[in-house]
Formats: sequence, structure tokens, C-alpha cells
Amino acid sequence: MRGFTGRTLVDDALRWVDEHSKSLPGETIAFDVAHGRILAADVSSPINVPSFDRSAMDGYAVRGIETEGASDYNPLSFPIVGESMPGQPFPDTMPPGSAVRIMTGAPVPTGADAVIPAEYATETGATVEITSTVSPGKHVGRRGEDVSAGSQLFAAGRRLRPQDVGLLASVGVTAVEAVRRPRVRLLITGNELVVPGNERGEFQIYESNSSVLAALVHRDGAELESLMRVEDDREAISQAMCKAGADVVLVSGGSSVGKEDHAPSILAAEGDLAIHGIAMRPSSPTGMGAIQQTLVFLLPGNPVSCLCAYDFFAGRAIRRLGGRSAVWPYPQRQVEVGRKVVSAVGRVDYCRVKLNEGRAEPLALSGASILSSTTRADGFVVIPAESEGHAPGTVVTVYFYDPA
Amino acid sequence: MRGFTGRTLVDDALRWVDEHSKSLPGETIAFDVAHGRILAADVSSPINVPSFDRSAMDGYAVRGIETEGASDYNPLSFPIVGESMPGQPFPDTMPPGSAVRIMTGAPVPTGADAVIPAEYATETGATVEITSTVSPGKHVGRRGEDVSAGSQLFAAGRRLRPQDVGLLASVGVTAVEAVRRPRVRLLITGNELVVPGNERGEFQIYESNSSVLAALVHRDGAELESLMRVEDDREAISQAMCKAGADVVLVSGGSSVGKEDHAPSILAAEGDLAIHGIAMRPSSPTGMGAIQQTLVFLLPGNPVSCLCAYDFFAGRAIRRLGGRSAVWPYPQRQVEVGRKVVSAVGRVDYCRVKLNEGRAEPLALSGASILSSTTRADGFVVIPAESEGHAPGTVVTVYFYDPA
Repeated sequence: MRGFTGRTLVDDALRWVDEHSKSLPGETIAFDVAHGRILAADVSSPINVPSFDRSAMDGYAVRGIETEGASDYNPLSFPIVGESMPGQPFPDTMPPGSAVRIMTGAPVPTGADAVIPAEYATETGATVEITSTVSPGKHVGRRGEDVSAGSQLFAAGRRLRPQDVGLLASVGVTAVEAVRRPRVRLLITGNELVVPGNERGEFQIYESNSSVLAALVHRDGAELESLMRVEDDREAISQAMCKAGADVVLVSGGSSVGKEDHAPSILAAEGDLAIHGIAMRPSSPTGMGAIQQTLVFLLPGNPVSCLCAYDFFAGRAIRRLGGRSAVWPYPQRQVEVGRKVVSAVGRVDYCRVKLNEGRAEPLALSGASILSSTTRADGFVVIPAESEGHAPGTVVTVYFYDPA
Repeated sequence: MRGFTGRTLVDDALRWVDEHSKSLPGETIAFDVAHGRILAADVSSPINVPSFDRSAMDGYAVRGIETEGASDYNPLSFPIVGESMPGQPFPDTMPPGSAVRIMTGAPVPTGADAVIPAEYATETGATVEITSTVSPGKHVGRRGEDVSAGSQLFAAGRRLRPQDVGLLASVGVTAVEAVRRPRVRLLITGNELVVPGNERGEFQIYESNSSVLAALVHRDGAELESLMRVEDDREAISQAMCKAGADVVLVSGGSSVGKEDHAPSILAAEGDLAIHGIAMRPSSPTGMGAIQQTLVFLLPGNPVSCLCAYDFFAGRAIRRLGGRSAVWPYPQRQVEVGRKVVSAVGRVDYCRVKLNEGRAEPLALSGASILSSTTRADGFVVIPAESEGHAPGTVVTVYFYDPA
């Protein structure tokens, strides 16, 4: 048993992550499952929207110039020669001096160039009397005013909003190129672990890291390729780590330097163990590297360390592979420190805090093994390597665990 | 054709929504699909975590009192009588004057009460020499220190985080009561509409509201019960609106007061049309009510109005039914106005804005039919009914469309 001989700085580990996680290639997906996906290519519109001049109001299509002088004191009458409904336009050219009843969204008849809203019109028999003037073009949505044919709708890299999917639909684009979702394998090691629901011996513990990681992987837009549970056995771990099919392998447990910690030497033997041991707390016994094109993250088995190492490194890689922003998907806010946040110079600290009367206080019990520190906390503070911590009254960035 | 005789204030409509949307009853779900779900009942732990005193370090279990005086200048030797590994404890009581090799997470042997970390120990043959003193209890995680048996883990109403699911796993809770997800029916009307991918006539338009609404419904934690497309036909709309099986029916199109606007009179005839016409822009022709226990929202067909009416009213109801917070799931930030935001006193305005050099500017082209205004915008500003708008330099709350 020995300690790490040296520890990589967090910033250097982040640099390695960024250098090794570029957007995956695109794949064609249907527009109606595209919400939240990241475009791999620009999208342009094949059509104009609207593809015809349309009415923006319920009312009467007229020639604007013919309404000149109309007012409450001088109502003007027009014979109604027909109507235009959405999808059922007035079929002819509208004769001069006439009007066509029209609904919002319906095509403006040829010959007409404006719409008198219904509140300025009174229909009597086959005639409409109008009490307001409209200038040409008024209340008419011009062909292509929303989207013009050939124009770019979205640039590559766009994360599609609900309304973006609607815009794709409205121009008839039924498929787009989206960045492929990273395929993530969870590889859970530890002979002492029992799957929840199974019988547990006195000194066994329920395995929980796979539950946390699966949810985080899903949050970060990736797919679970598989969940493999293996004994603390070199051969079994090696096979599970090297099996093809995953873009990222997350190994939970056995990441340190003890004699039962097989994962680092396996990664070194089968690929590249680029980083092992990081100057941070918790999560110091974190490793990362690659086997061919697959990124491998060795996450400590202690549950808080596992969560923290995922959030600092693995999650960032997964988001970047999926074309997402590298930044944390946690809402952040500037908050005053209520009770001293202690850290050691030379390492980054991930400190769980709870708000008390609007001020952030570190949790009293917060070791790497205390998973409840991450459920009792409102969020966390990151203390940089060069800092000894934060005195009460300091304003710091708190990252909140709960979504906005 | 006539206008609304009166319009309900937005605040009154919100009050109606809140009065008619209480959390749905709970259902039993498996812990491993519980991420993001809302607890319908408190959850307590059936066990202690850890369920035994465990080592917090790799090192040697000792009696703390026996290490008194140990230092670099006065190393103390202990015979190693065995080892304790996670899941494989030292089977006997540790004799006085001895040590047991121990790994992080392994049970502390009976007799031992502290752990000397490996960096203060040198193993030679069957003996370990230690160069530091440890007080009793040091580096030992006490039984129940993370979670004590019988204690409450989460209260009803909790939205489960990734780590919450982990905590459930770690105490062996494999099922929880979660608020049932609202079942939402989309009912799309409009004879002029064509489903994207199908052939479109010159005056037809591609239907896009269902795409936006489906994504929003999913975002807000609900299930799509069904997507029904019906002709502008009273009987067909009525049947689709009244069919059992949905908690919420969202009707898109035909929500106003024109002669083709069937939905309001159907809702009034089959249930209760509580509100019709709202003092806001866009989305003024919005209606809402109920048929027995089912909430029905009549959303305007214009795409921006549809989105806005969903976000103000239907989405709020859906989130509340699902046990979520009523507040918008949009990140918000205080931003200075860069160009005048115009509104009319007496109505609430939903104004799409774009940031330009950090200042919010309203989009030039932003009618209710211009869906691209919601894709070009960074977010929106809500101007209250009593305001005429915001002058440049005013600081306002911008709600951002993109997640944090």
C-alpha cells in the first residue's frame, strides 16, 4: 500500500478532457424526436413561411386605397363577393370595389392588399360597412415574412428548443443531422456490493453508484450502452473495460493505488492511463485515459467522490462528445458565506453547502463516503487550489443541485 | 364575427389554474426510474448506513490508545494479525497490542477503534511500524453516520436528484410512491393543416403546434396520452375532447370567437368554459375550463400564441398536477433594456428579446404568427398589465429559452 507519488492539477485534468472530447459525428434523426438534441449541420428552409400572403386578422380583405376616408361618420360599403378560409382561398381575383370575408391565416385574395379587422366592420346581407381606413399591406402577413426559402434556420451546434422543432415542422423538414448521443458503459466493481432488492449480508453494502451515474449520464444527453457488474478480478475488469461498443466507460471503484485497485494498471496496460491521482478533495483517487477511441474514467467507489469525479471530468467529456456545452448544468447564484468554508492550499475542494437564512454554510458531516451530504445540501461551492477557503461574508458562486 | 366582450386578467386566469390543479395521486415506481420524479410520500431508511463501523482510509486498524507516543522518532511496532477487506471482515476480535490491515470501506474489527493511514505505516514481514498517533474513533466511519435507521431521507414533494436515487439504492429502498405523471392529450384542429412529410397543397400549411406542445409537455414531466388530429367539425372535436383517459386536453386552434371556432362552445356545452379571452398579447383568444376532472385548455392556432398560452397556463397546470413547482423552468437573469419595449396598459405582453452587447432588445418582427421570433430570440420579457413598457436602461427580468 502506497499513496500517489504526485497529483495532477484539476486544470490540467480538465485540459486533457477537452483535448480528448470532440463532438461525435452526426446521425439522421426524425424532427419529432429532436427536442434537446444538438444539430451536427446547419439547417435551411426549403420553403417560404407563409408560402402565400395571409391574413393576420379575422375581417375583410379589401384594397387599402379604396378604404380611404372611411370612419365612424363616413362608413363605406363594399359588396362581399366571397370568403377566404384557411386552406380554402377565395378562388378568383377580387373585383375592384368589393370585399372578401377572411379569417386569420387564410390566403389574401389576388387583388386585395389589406384586411379590415372585424371590429371595424358590420356585415348586413351581402354587404359590409367599414368604419376605418387601412393602408395597403395592413394586417397582411407577407409570403416568407416568418421564414424565407433558402434562409438558414439553425446553425450546427444548436440545442433544439421545443419551438425549434416546431419551426422544422412548419417548413416541412422532417429529418435533421444531430450529433450522435455518446454511448456510455457503466462498469461497477466491488466484491462487497449487493444490488438493491437482493439479500444483503451483514458486511455487504447496497451498490448505489450505478444509480447516480445512470441518472447523470441521462441528464447529460448520453445513452447507457450497458451496465456491467464485475468481481474485483483483473481478467473480468479488463474484458469489460476493453469490450467494443462504448464511447465512454465509467469504472466505479478500485481506482486508487491499493492492491485490489486493478483498474488503473489495466487501463495502463490496455491503453493509456493519462492521469491518475488529482489534487482535489474528494475524488483524489480519480484516473482517466483512453483505450483506442474510447475514453475511460476511473471513478472512486466512495459515493461523493464518484459523483464529484463524474461532474468534474466524465460529465464534461460526455457533454462535449454529445455536442453540448462543457459547463455544468447546475443553476448558479452568488451567495454570501455564512460559516467558514475551509480548504487546503494546493487542492481544489468540492464543498457541499446548505442555505441558512440565505447564506451558504458547509455541511458538518461531509466525508467522501457520506452520500447524504449531497442530498441534504442545496448545492456546492468549488474552492480553487490557491485558496485556503472562504471567510463568512465572502460572496461565492453556489452551484445548485436542483434544476431552475 | 365578433370580438371578445370582455377579457379575463392574466392574474385571474392564473388563480383559476392554481385552484384547479392539485397534485395527482401517487403511484409506486421502481427506484431506478425515479430520477426527476416527485415523491408523493415521505421516505425513511430501513437500515443504518454504514451498517457497521467502517474504515475511512487504507491503513491499519489499531486501538487508538496503544498508538500514544508514536512518531518519526519513536516508531511503534505491531504484529499484523490479519486483514479486513470490503465485504470480507477480519473474523475475530483483534487482540490487544496488534493491528489489522484494512482497506477503505472495510469493517473495523471488534477490538479496534481507529485506523492509521498507510502513509504513516511501514509493513515489514508480519509487522507494521507506525510513526503517528491516532486517537480512538479516528478514520472510522461510525455505523449510521451517513443515514440512521428510521430517519427520514426525503419528504413528499421532493424532486429526486441523481444522488437521491443513489441514496435510495444505498438503503435498499427499491420502490417509492411518486406523483403520477399527468396524461396529456393533444387535439389539433385546422382543415388547412398538413402533417410534415405529407404532400402540401399551395394554400395548406405544415402543422407545427403539436411538435412544440409535445416537447413542452415532455419538458414539464407529463406523458403524451395521445395526439389526435381532427377536422374543424363540431362532432369530431367534441368526441376527441370528451374521450376519457387524459388529465389535461390541449386543443390547438379554433379557440377564438369566429364561426369556425368550435372548441369554446363545445367546452361550454360538455363541461365548464371557465375563462375565454385573456387580457394579454399574444394568446388573447385563449380559453380554459374542465370536463369533469379533465382540464381543457383552448390554445390559439397561431404558433407564438400557442407557445405563450401553453407557458402561461397549460404548462403551469401540468407542472402542478405532476407535483412540480409552478414556476417557469426557464433560467432568469436581470438584464438592461437596450431598445424600448412597448406595451399597452391593460394587457400583459410576452415580448421576445435578443441580447445585443448584453442588453435586451425586442425583435422587430414578432407577430403572433411569426414562430421564428421564438427561435431567433434568446428569451422573453413579461410586461405587466399596468405598464406601458420599458424604456432603454431599465433593468428587467429576462427568461431565457435555453436551459442553464
